Amino acid sequence: MYGQRMERARARMHELGIDALLVSVGADLPYLTGYEAMPLERLTMLVVPRDEIATLIVPRLEAPRVEEQPDAFRIFPWEETEDPVAIAAAFAGPAVRAAIGDQTWARFVLDLQAAMPSTTFVSASHVTGPLRVQKDHQEIAALRAAAHAVDAVALEMAQRPFAGRRERDVARDFSHLIHEFGHERTNFAIVASGPNGASPHHEPGDRVIEPGDVVVCDFGGTMRGYCSDITRMYVVGHTTQAFAEMFDVLAEAQARAVDAVAPGIACEEIDLVARRIISDAGYGEYFIHRTGHGIGLEAHEEPYLVAGNDTKLEVGNVFSVEPGIYLPGWYGARIEDIVVCTADGPESLNLAPHHAYIVG
Amino acid sequence: MYGQRMERARARMHELGIDALLVSVGADLPYLTGYEAMPLERLTMLVVPRDEIATLIVPRLEAPRVEEQPDAFRIFPWEETEDPVAIAAAFAGPAVRAAIGDQTWARFVLDLQAAMPSTTFVSASHVTGPLRVQKDHQEIAALRAAAHAVDAVALEMAQRPFAGRRERDVARDFSHLIHEFGHERTNFAIVASGPNGASPHHEPGDRVIEPGDVVVCDFGGTMRGYCSDITRMYVVGHTTQAFAEMFDVLAEAQARAVDAVAPGIACEEIDLVARRIISDAGYGEYFIHRTGHGIGLEAHEEPYLVAGNDTKLEVGNVFSVEPGIYLPGWYGARIEDIVVCTADGPESLNLAPHHAYIVG
Repeated sequence: MYGQRMERARARMHELGIDALLVSVGADLPYLTGYEAMPLERLTMLVVPRDEIATLIVPRLEAPRVEEQPDAFRIFPWEETEDPVAIAAAFAGPAVRAAIGDQTWARFVLDLQAAMPSTTFVSASHVTGPLRVQKDHQEIAALRAAAHAVDAVALEMAQRPFAGRRERDVARDFSHLIHEFGHERTNFAIVASGPNGASPHHEPGDRVIEPGDVVVCDFGGTMRGYCSDITRMYVVGHTTQAFAEMFDVLAEAQARAVDAVAPGIACEEIDLVARRIISDAGYGEYFIHRTGHGIGLEAHEEPYLVAGNDTKLEVGNVFSVEPGIYLPGWYGARIEDIVVCTADGPESLNLAPHHAYIVG
Repeated sequence: MYGQRMERARARMHELGIDALLVSVGADLPYLTGYEAMPLERLTMLVVPRDEIATLIVPRLEAPRVEEQPDAFRIFPWEETEDPVAIAAAFAGPAVRAAIGDQTWARFVLDLQAAMPSTTFVSASHVTGPLRVQKDHQEIAALRAAAHAVDAVALEMAQRPFAGRRERDVARDFSHLIHEFGHERTNFAIVASGPNGASPHHEPGDRVIEPGDVVVCDFGGTMRGYCSDITRMYVVGHTTQAFAEMFDVLAEAQARAVDAVAPGIACEEIDLVARRIISDAGYGEYFIHRTGHGIGLEAHEEPYLVAGNDTKLEVGNVFSVEPGIYLPGWYGARIEDIVVCTADGPESLNLAPHHAYIVG
């Protein structure tokens, strides 16, 4: 599999006239090699010359963690007193154009530019993006399993008490369940109660959840390498007519945006479908973020469902659809599912019901 | 405090002839602003022109998480459809030389270079490194509290059974205790049993720990923003004379390296003290990494105790001292403490005993 992916990457390099691909921390590396590098000051870098074998340059003490893929790359461990940038530049050879991994640390970019002064550097996502955005069956199966696991977390949490507990304690419950239900890692667990819900990326804190609170819960993790991401609403005991009316608008916007998913539809069009419904109901200025983001090895990746992105959806794209409405001083609301673009239209990977869950 | 740090950064910029400092993800940002940015595809960037007020450019939906520091910086939220790189370049102004945060993503470095074609970029650590490497009393107090918390974890784990359990389950105990004893985050928990101990950064796996096993446990987290990092050895029931002899050499090397810490001593000299003792005992080729790394807001930062680093230690430097011996096919051993360089010599922040803990 890694050998095949490497060949597809080389084909893209030929298309784009790129002589060397340099991949460090971030998801391109596990995509091409199966190995995930820790974000360390010791450089790990896969060097793929267009027409020669690829080399994974790795600190000697990380080398035992690498599983070799002889059809895809060889390993070159470097010693504590060596200069890994010089080694990477040597393996890259006299490249006119090199593509460098999007999340490579700036210090290594600057050092590589100094070591390869006649090379022009571009973003590696030009090479890897079009490959990674088309998920194959195995990848979709992994994303589906991760989605079902967080569906189960959402439903289990609907049975637990919220009132009288701090946001951070409820968030810890989410984190533990994500792990318990099969993820190797919890990536985030947002629990944003009452007025805190008006901040989309609120950090769960010491606020004690009260009866009548509306609580935004947005959580996810990594399972067999692939990410989950879901948002559901919880309401403590009862809520207001005003919330119910706003929530109906949101649910309608989310459902219609999912329905609009099909190959050939532009990313910005999905955003527009959700935004128009929310704006028409008078909440337009309170929907302060894009409608969704791609998901896969990374929690956020291409394609982005945002105004101005006229990229057309393709079969195998997987992304979140997650409109939100945020009323400062009051509360916020968001509904989020992970959706696959299939030849027949949308397939939502999340199956937990969308209604606000009433909790104690 | 943040205003003072910003002034010291500006003084360095004057010294080095740097017109603009551009800081994104990584520890420089919380050091200068108190705000830690999530590593996202949406750019967060602090722009510090040398002689004008600093601006924190932040995605609008992250803005509510930022606590303003009016004496240090102002906030500029950007909208989903705006180009944050163009905004950062505009705030930076016509800089001849700009310093960019070491961990800034490559894609933003390349975009900034394109948006600022007549600017030369250098690593921000030239500006921030000399500030961050000198910890003040508050920072040392935070590092001490984190060290004591993981000391307690080490001692608590010495009471728990290891035999018959998988490495990953023991690692989960470490993670839970790190959290329970006051850290907001577990950064890593290496449990490397038997032959797995010969890989310094072993990923805890399914190996079931057996009687007679030697187990390397290296763990740490983040508490009130500052990192802990400790390694202790656990032995299941009994061990061999060969291990005991090797371990004595290691303990002697670690203790003498700590004793050698003093202002004015070169970093490489501390490495050499440990390495000489291990080499003289015949284990030189099995000590395959540097002796230590600085620690603070980041788990690994300057100064690095490694051959070739002739930087002299200064009062307020804080770093690990952690020699190790790794015997492929057999086991590994490492002892690690966090040490402060004071005017009077070393202060070890970790107080848990160094002997191998006998566990069931």
